[in-house]
Amino acid sequence: MAKIAASILACDLARLADEVKRVEEHVDMIHFDVMDGHFVPNISFGLPVLKALRKETKLPISVHLMITNPEDYIDRFIEEGADMVAIHYESTFHLHRLVHRVKDLGAQAFVAINPHTPINLLSEIITDVDGVLVMSVNPGFSGQRFIARSLEKIRNLRKMVKELGLETEIMVDGGVNEENASILVKNGATILVMGYGIFRNDNYVELIKSIKQEREESAD
Amino acid sequence: MAKIAASILACDLARLADEVKRVEEHVDMIHFDVMDGHFVPNISFGLPVLKALRKETKLPISVHLMITNPEDYIDRFIEEGADMVAIHYESTFHLHRLVHRVKDLGAQAFVAINPHTPINLLSEIITDVDGVLVMSVNPGFSGQRFIARSLEKIRNLRKMVKELGLETEIMVDGGVNEENASILVKNGATILVMGYGIFRNDNYVELIKSIKQEREESAD
Amino acid sequence: MAKIAASILACDLARLADEVKRVEEHVDMIHFDVMDGHFVPNISFGLPVLKALRKETKLPISVHLMITNPEDYIDRFIEEGADMVAIHYESTFHLHRLVHRVKDLGAQAFVAINPHTPINLLSEIITDVDGVLVMSVNPGFSGQRFIARSLEKIRNLRKMVKELGLETEIMVDGGVNEENASILVKNGATILVMGYGIFRNDNYVELIKSIKQEREESAD
Amino acid sequence: MAKIAASILACDLARLADEVKRVEEHVDMIHFDVMDGHFVPNISFGLPVLKALRKETKLPISVHLMITNPEDYIDRFIEEGADMVAIHYESTFHLHRLVHRVKDLGAQAFVAINPHTPINLLSEIITDVDGVLVMSVNPGFSGQRFIARSLEKIRNLRKMVKELGLETEIMVDGGVNEENASILVKNGATILVMGYGIFRNDNYVELIKSIKQEREESAD
Amino acid sequence: MAKIAASILACDLARLADEVKRVEEHVDMIHFDVMDGHFVPNISFGLPVLKALRKETKLPISVHLMITNPEDYIDRFIEEGADMVAIHYESTFHLHRLVHRVKDLGAQAFVAINPHTPINLLSEIITDVDGVLVMSVNPGFSGQRFIARSLEKIRNLRKMVKELGLETEIMVDGGVNEENASILVKNGATILVMGYGIFRNDNYVELIKSIKQEREESAD
Amino acid sequence: MAKIAASILACDLARLADEVKRVEEHVDMIHFDVMDGHFVPNISFGLPVLKALRKETKLPISVHLMITNPEDYIDRFIEEGADMVAIHYESTFHLHRLVHRVKDLGAQAFVAINPHTPINLLSEIITDVDGVLVMSVNPGFSGQRFIARSLEKIRNLRKMVKELGLETEIMVDGGVNEENASILVKNGATILVMGYGIFRNDNYVELIKSIKQEREESAD
Repeated sequence: MAKIAASILACDLARLADEVKRVEEHVDMIHFDVMDGHFVPNISFGLPVLKALRKETKLPISVHLMITNPEDYIDRFIEEGADMVAIHYESTFHLHRLVHRVKDLGAQAFVAINPHTPINLLSEIITDVDGVLVMSVNPGFSGQRFIARSLEKIRNLRKMVKELGLETEIMVDGGVNEENASILVKNGATILVMGYGIFRNDNYVELIKSIKQEREESAD
Repeated sequence: MAKIAASILACDLARLADEVKRVEEHVDMIHFDVMDGHFVPNISFGLPVLKALRKETKLPISVHLMITNPEDYIDRFIEEGADMVAIHYESTFHLHRLVHRVKDLGAQAFVAINPHTPINLLSEIITDVDGVLVMSVNPGFSGQRFIARSLEKIRNLRKMVKELGLETEIMVDGGVNEENASILVKNGATILVMGYGIFRNDNYVELIKSIKQEREESAD
Repeated sequence: MAKIAASILACDLARLADEVKRVEEHVDMIHFDVMDGHFVPNISFGLPVLKALRKETKLPISVHLMITNPEDYIDRFIEEGADMVAIHYESTFHLHRLVHRVKDLGAQAFVAINPHTPINLLSEIITDVDGVLVMSVNPGFSGQRFIARSLEKIRNLRKMVKELGLETEIMVDGGVNEENASILVKNGATILVMGYGIFRNDNYVELIKSIKQEREESAD
Repeated sequence: MAKIAASILACDLARLADEVKRVEEHVDMIHFDVMDGHFVPNISFGLPVLKALRKETKLPISVHLMITNPEDYIDRFIEEGADMVAIHYESTFHLHRLVHRVKDLGAQAFVAINPHTPINLLSEIITDVDGVLVMSVNPGFSGQRFIARSLEKIRNLRKMVKELGLETEIMVDGGVNEENASILVKNGATILVMGYGIFRNDNYVELIKSIKQEREESAD
Repeated sequence: MAKIAASILACDLARLADEVKRVEEHVDMIHFDVMDGHFVPNISFGLPVLKALRKETKLPISVHLMITNPEDYIDRFIEEGADMVAIHYESTFHLHRLVHRVKDLGAQAFVAINPHTPINLLSEIITDVDGVLVMSVNPGFSGQRFIARSLEKIRNLRKMVKELGLETEIMVDGGVNEENASILVKNGATILVMGYGIFRNDNYVELIKSIKQEREESAD
Repeated sequence: MAKIAASILACDLARLADEVKRVEEHVDMIHFDVMDGHFVPNISFGLPVLKALRKETKLPISVHLMITNPEDYIDRFIEEGADMVAIHYESTFHLHRLVHRVKDLGAQAFVAINPHTPINLLSEIITDVDGVLVMSVNPGFSGQRFIARSLEKIRNLRKMVKELGLETEIMVDGGVNEENASILVKNGATILVMGYGIFRNDNYVELIKSIKQEREESAD
């Protein structure tokens, strides 16, 4: 059954506690998009906001580091409450070291890849990570349209993971909605990140339910 | 009469709307500290948080850019509601251009200086700016202790401003509290940024009142 | 029939208008190599030179961005008249976004790859681009010798393109001359960039003719 | 008598040889603005253009390096024919070393300062340079308006130079035109950089004559 | 027979001459790890130390550049005595150019790859290099534990090299010790870098002997 | 009486222990020049060399950080044994923070200034530091010639220090020799860094003696 991560980038950020409370029982984790204005052309939020959020929920928090110097911030995001940290393949010379730093500090380590980055670049790191975060839009903004080609990337990634006998999570982030969620899960996505689809959608509870069901049907 | 800017870096960031509502009638503006994890060793918050904040208050919002690429973000912070933008002297080769960009977009332009930066570096830009933001702690974190030497810097800055016949605002940020507020105002500070002193202080209303009074007394 | 792009880096840059006029009727496009002194160890020319060139010719102009910050300059090069923009795989974290920015602005998007960059890195972007610019010398200077191994890269790229049922252009840049032009075309090159071979070669008209013919012969 | 430098950034860059020929007998030097797209938000022209220009004129060529890595390009610009090289104070940690490198290679060394940079920063380097290039607009584009405050900067610089008993040139670049040229010369400018005022002005010969005369009148 | 490189990062650096003398007759080359504090989080040693070392030994010296600007230092390390230079795939946009620069200056060129970097990225450069330096720990410190997965990488690399009919050296660096040396050689390693295993191991002579023997046994 | 710091950059680096032993009783401290190949065009030595050196001498070790990211290395150099750390004014946005970090860790904090940097930039930091390191050559290499103008800088610095009633050390580094040592001390230098003058000078003991004497004579 696919897990759902609610991305707070899309919620009313002046009422973070309320927004999280509102969706908490329906989702599996809170997704936290850190943008530094260098790796991506946007500055979102970081450590003090995570600290405040951490007090409001017991759900796991997945932190996606869209920053050019992840080596300087891994420890502190975990200290402030991250349960998972996603590091971009494109953002570091030392992916193996950073992935193991995350794990040594007790959090789950994901590697994130941009739309143009092929999965064959993951061959040496895939056995070390807990999951792969496939960006299905270009990182930097919420509310973008799903890049269709991502579906095949997810399918290929699932194949790679299965062939290696791994249980690596496949997290999909960007443009996930009622039209594509089901097909994503069928093709291998195990965690769907949703922002507008949850926080700006009156029917998000049904949407989540249907996603969770769909997955079971496709399980055979 | 000195103005008070409430720095939301010190408030409960999970309840930004409530926090701002709570203090709104007692302060003159909301202070918004943008940190990119490169200019300073912290990542705070940026555009989407400002957008959410803007809807909650009619107070002016002063945005302090602690980022290494201010030229890329001035337009967008003003678009999302900044009434004032402070740019660090240390962060750009083109201070004159950026200051005028802020002004051309209808906001007030401040230049911010770190504790080690002397005010004689401002001689060519002082006539162009609406104010100077004197950092009285090293930027990057809230809750630090006031650097005593800043008082003389403020005094010298006031002297420079007066000699030039200007009305440049002198904004002081860092470690401002009940013990030093009065003396700061007496020595030339026209805007005091306060974080903990407001958001984590039960007596902040009295404190603000006393600061505002003190200023008048010292006016002669 | 292969197209020929005349690279003005090799012409008499003090007489750009004349040089372009001279070769215009024999070539298919003008090639414009932008070097910023950071991505490559040379500074060539940029926006104001393109603007001047644009007035002199109706031929398409292909702009090759050898710069480390292509995201900041795509819009402006297209504004000044670029019909095609080539972005280096090595120069950006966000190739998918930049490629689509070029296309959204109405120009053709090419991805350029340095000699050491394998084509398997293009698997996720090949369906999005109009062409691939294969560097057959190390970028930065005109007048270098063709790297022999590029031929196999071109052959493999053609194979990739064909297998995907695409019509992606294969542009070859660096050391193209009368000795290798024919074999390049036979192996899949659809656009040949030539500098010295055109601007510093008395027989360039025959050379171009023979290249164009050669291609037809090898077409079956 | 003030010298006039004709800035080719404002000429028809497709006809550089003609443009230079046209103005050559009326001006004292050709000014060559190198922009790398990093120090300033524009990419202009560099080494191969200078090489082409060098063959067309015997006038001295002054090269203004608006680049972030001047240490990598000084030698090569002098090799291609620069008679003077201006390095920005803001662009290097090692101004003294670079200034002396320029001089050791037989060219004149100027230090350039942006509008917000005070001249008191030059106290340790002024005795080493042949001239100071005072930017009277923000560097990056031609055709901007003269920043009025530059006049006082020039006056103060002349005072500094005189007090030290030096003969340092004071070069002014940006927005120089018929309205301010005379007053600039009177206040200490010894070299005026003009672009539009020469290349896009039918009366530039008279303008230059009047500037040269004005200077003599003010000599007493 | 595998070659042994003694890494001086692990020796008593206050007695470099003595340390090298002590091991000289037992090893095939001296390994010299240059760290700039940017590519890796450590600053080790560079040009003046190499110059001093060069006078003390006739053994070949292999220089491993863990720096972000290898293009600026290749010439000088070869000038000071490097017989081999390893450049990180991750550290440059222009690997082909740098590899050939090393060779043009008469030294052997190796490409180094970090633990997470797959060998399929080497497909275009493998025919140009004298060897590949496989990092079997994350670069930056001596005394780390061998990353088990490296073994398969070495095996795959040997396969790639053999299939291409090449004689490329396979150098392994990081955590090499008596437990894994033999298996590394059997799987294709042709040069083993050892630090603690030599300089802080009383039985290093036997260890080296046994490694050299082991290789021969596995030769069939 | 002036103190003498022996700069090991000039010693036989293959025999560091011996070299230090040889001069130890004649000098007051050992000077350790860290160059990262980014702040200066040379890579010298760093942490593991300091660690080795620390075991060989009880003399204070002064570490001069010629690196662009001093914030990342202060703690570790002090951990490995630095008694003093000099940070370049030009190398950081946060000089006040770094100076106090050095002091909080129990070491002496110096600020270093390049030849072109005026001392008036120190007005806000001078009261916080233990000393100023005046570079009297451009940093990066040993064996350069003393820049004559440095003498006035030292004199002015002494004046500034005296006027403020401080006891700030004035350390001079670069080209110090028997011809200028005496005059430097007379004009305010309290610590002279010497490299070649000690390690490559047979009469260094007399030289040091005469310097120490000279100082006393000039004391009146």
